[in-house]
Amino acid sequence: MEPWRTAIVDAGPAHIRVRGHDVLDLMRRSSFTDLIFLLHHERLPSDAERRLIDALLIGSADHGAGAPSCAAARLAASGNRQSVSAAIAAGVLTIGDEHGGAGERCMELIAAGLERSRRESISIDEAAGRLVDEAKAAKTRLPGFGHRVHTAIDPRVAVIFRLAAEGGLTGDGIRFALALEAALRDRVKPIPLNIDGAMAAVLHDLGLPPKVGALLFIIGRVAGLSAEVLEEYTREKPMRITIPVTYDGVPKRQDGT
Amino acid sequence: MEPWRTAIVDAGPAHIRVRGHDVLDLMRRSSFTDLIFLLHHERLPSDAERRLIDALLIGSADHGAGAPSCAAARLAASGNRQSVSAAIAAGVLTIGDEHGGAGERCMELIAAGLERSRRESISIDEAAGRLVDEAKAAKTRLPGFGHRVHTAIDPRVAVIFRLAAEGGLTGDGIRFALALEAALRDRVKPIPLNIDGAMAAVLHDLGLPPKVGALLFIIGRVAGLSAEVLEEYTREKPMRITIPVTYDGVPKRQDGT
Amino acid sequence: MEPWRTAIVDAGPAHIRVRGHDVLDLMRRSSFTDLIFLLHHERLPSDAERRLIDALLIGSADHGAGAPSCAAARLAASGNRQSVSAAIAAGVLTIGDEHGGAGERCMELIAAGLERSRRESISIDEAAGRLVDEAKAAKTRLPGFGHRVHTAIDPRVAVIFRLAAEGGLTGDGIRFALALEAALRDRVKPIPLNIDGAMAAVLHDLGLPPKVGALLFIIGRVAGLSAEVLEEYTREKPMRITIPVTYDGVPKRQDGT
Amino acid sequence: MEPWRTAIVDAGPAHIRVRGHDVLDLMRRSSFTDLIFLLHHERLPSDAERRLIDALLIGSADHGAGAPSCAAARLAASGNRQSVSAAIAAGVLTIGDEHGGAGERCMELIAAGLERSRRESISIDEAAGRLVDEAKAAKTRLPGFGHRVHTAIDPRVAVIFRLAAEGGLTGDGIRFALALEAALRDRVKPIPLNIDGAMAAVLHDLGLPPKVGALLFIIGRVAGLSAEVLEEYTREKPMRITIPVTYDGVPKRQDGT
Repeated sequence: MEPWRTAIVDAGPAHIRVRGHDVLDLMRRSSFTDLIFLLHHERLPSDAERRLIDALLIGSADHGAGAPSCAAARLAASGNRQSVSAAIAAGVLTIGDEHGGAGERCMELIAAGLERSRRESISIDEAAGRLVDEAKAAKTRLPGFGHRVHTAIDPRVAVIFRLAAEGGLTGDGIRFALALEAALRDRVKPIPLNIDGAMAAVLHDLGLPPKVGALLFIIGRVAGLSAEVLEEYTREKPMRITIPVTYDGVPKRQDGT
Repeated sequence: MEPWRTAIVDAGPAHIRVRGHDVLDLMRRSSFTDLIFLLHHERLPSDAERRLIDALLIGSADHGAGAPSCAAARLAASGNRQSVSAAIAAGVLTIGDEHGGAGERCMELIAAGLERSRRESISIDEAAGRLVDEAKAAKTRLPGFGHRVHTAIDPRVAVIFRLAAEGGLTGDGIRFALALEAALRDRVKPIPLNIDGAMAAVLHDLGLPPKVGALLFIIGRVAGLSAEVLEEYTREKPMRITIPVTYDGVPKRQDGT
Repeated sequence: MEPWRTAIVDAGPAHIRVRGHDVLDLMRRSSFTDLIFLLHHERLPSDAERRLIDALLIGSADHGAGAPSCAAARLAASGNRQSVSAAIAAGVLTIGDEHGGAGERCMELIAAGLERSRRESISIDEAAGRLVDEAKAAKTRLPGFGHRVHTAIDPRVAVIFRLAAEGGLTGDGIRFALALEAALRDRVKPIPLNIDGAMAAVLHDLGLPPKVGALLFIIGRVAGLSAEVLEEYTREKPMRITIPVTYDGVPKRQDGT
Repeated sequence: MEPWRTAIVDAGPAHIRVRGHDVLDLMRRSSFTDLIFLLHHERLPSDAERRLIDALLIGSADHGAGAPSCAAARLAASGNRQSVSAAIAAGVLTIGDEHGGAGERCMELIAAGLERSRRESISIDEAAGRLVDEAKAAKTRLPGFGHRVHTAIDPRVAVIFRLAAEGGLTGDGIRFALALEAALRDRVKPIPLNIDGAMAAVLHDLGLPPKVGALLFIIGRVAGLSAEVLEEYTREKPMRITIPVTYDGVPKRQDGT
């Protein structure tokens, strides 16, 4: 078998380097958030970039034990009881298009909208307006907007955009996301940006590819899942969980056929 | 890298063989249950063995949408919405010592009990009695006994043992499991064998190793998880599920520290 | 929380029914394959339908320890060593659009092609030809065609279609799949149907929805993964596996920045 | 269904608090590592504690694309191609007793050894010596010692212990781990502490329970898995990976039986 190639880690008996940086130096001097940035971006972050990534990871970590990711992790912790890895993985598996994964789709939307603004020589506001009109006509939702609990405003969004502004990191990604929010309000109804959308806008401006929109949420959420799993193991009895169910299918067969 | 070795499948451009059997012959003539037996046992089953394995797999497949495995699979189907594999895997991950995995522990218990009966030259009933006394003293539960819903008797157990008897497949595994059930009733309280325990007894008598006690349950349950995931995708809206939660931790900090 | 609804299993202290059938009756009389059909289709299969489903499951179960699903399951068995569920789940997670999941896409393709044939009042051959021309122009591959090992012909396909013909179960799904194969040969180059495509054609003709194309492969493959995991646990030392890697990224940083 | 209870997150329409701290304050002022500490320990870390946790997470994140966790994540990325969650989860599932999970076992060992030192009124060195003698007699390995690549010394260990010393955080956990290393050298052969063992010693001294030994490794490693999965998606073709296999099982059956 041909060796696999990688540009991330170079490890040997006498050294471990992450994108060229000695891991021992990183352990002595850098934060975990620095390493996360380095792993996905080939360079260490500035202070303002680190502040933003910290805020995104903290905002993603845990939103309550009843969220699908936390609930699935607890179900696996409760039934499996052999391996905490199994419980963390079960939680991760609930993350996707409908839970935590909107960041990836929203980054694709932002990139497409900005490309269209350039290609059609129209303003960002105009490009956002057209996208909203098209989504309205097609009756599709825009990824990164709306939240089940925070229907009026997701307070984490304002904090993230404020940190970006303070750090001089506001770019076209954030501008386009805000233009979409305004166009939704004017042309459909107020549907505020959620944390997935804010993350998408910021990650676009930091130069990261769309998949990082989902990956960074997963990295943050795993910290929360870990605490949820630990609590399930230490506070609760095994197999405590059953979900109530009603059957509405075909009635009992009389003849076994 | 050295090639991995395997004694299961031999596959090449012109042939696929499972433990020496041409897969095309198996596809034409055998049942899926035959193949499952062959994969784990190096030979095809007799008619009576097939009947038993079919019963075990059918009995394991689905016990209601609210079981931890089905609930976790539905949570992942509901949130992820990208990959049915993710949902099936989340369901599988809830299976372990407390949910569906008791078969493995019970097979180890049966093997140890029968070994003790031989070593100490005591009857199966006597060996079972000593095990129950020791578990009572240590306040541990015996794996394969008791069920949250079927507290009096798990009706699937009687069917399995009847099929074993009809097929002439009752061996020391079943005898020892029944001896344990009797000893529990006489020395502690009635705690009936559950389907994991019945499966363990039968698989012991079929000459399969303890891990198959967990693996066969997983194979059966995946069929049920598949139907649960399909129903979640086709009948329900994404992200419909939130579990109600009450917070009982430290109160709001006044100073942010 | 509202109880969840389900039309699959009705379970109580005194009964378990699968789509209206008493599970004890099923355990006594039916095969696991019957149950798999029932779980996904609301009725038990005919003899010919059972034969076909058995062949599909057997053909999917295991294609060698080096396939991605088997390799991932073995890696998890080798490193985790706590839970066989974790190893089975890791194997399942490799299944998707590129490995075993083409059946779902191919079922969508068949359904769309047959719908087009009806809508545009053209023959199945004509509809297949247009689809192939469009895929050629767009430089996209057709799901369910081609195999890394079986480049000329996948021998499992002929067996499946023969069984369908013998059972009187050949329908428009199989006809359309064969028309696509012929159109590919005539208009592009010979790219034979693979087992995912054959499964898709058959499942279409059995009246099952596209997701079953992926789900049935998973059910079959889990039987193979189980045997692979058991072999890894019993024949191999833990953590025996390392994949050789070469680093081709940025060189060592001289200044730690 | 009774609501679940939790002491981790309190979330409502107008607030999200983690162990009493407003998540917006945390996003503005804290690092992701602070949050990880808070989630598992009910309070924010000191500067020295944060430095240590950062070092542990950085040291765990990635040790090369050929490690079991990274290889399984890449296999799932390569075959599934639908959901990055599936790939991350496959990587997590390889973590356990033999890969990354030794920290949990080593924390249990340290706690048991220190308890014994107190109970039997013997020195830490004496307790460590007895444990090593017993492991030697039983021919068992001590968790947290030895590494496949770093056979002489794992350079990450020295950095971690130095940081603990500089921060005034060296406690009995580190003392006992070093006593075990010395006893191994004197009574068996030099088998150095690995990063799992160093993590275990430090986490013991920080007052965290044994499961955190495995959980913190998972949190760190997920950052690395994320970068590996992103590289697989962006640099490599789907389904590029097959592991070479040799078959050494029963030969072809002549009669199909």
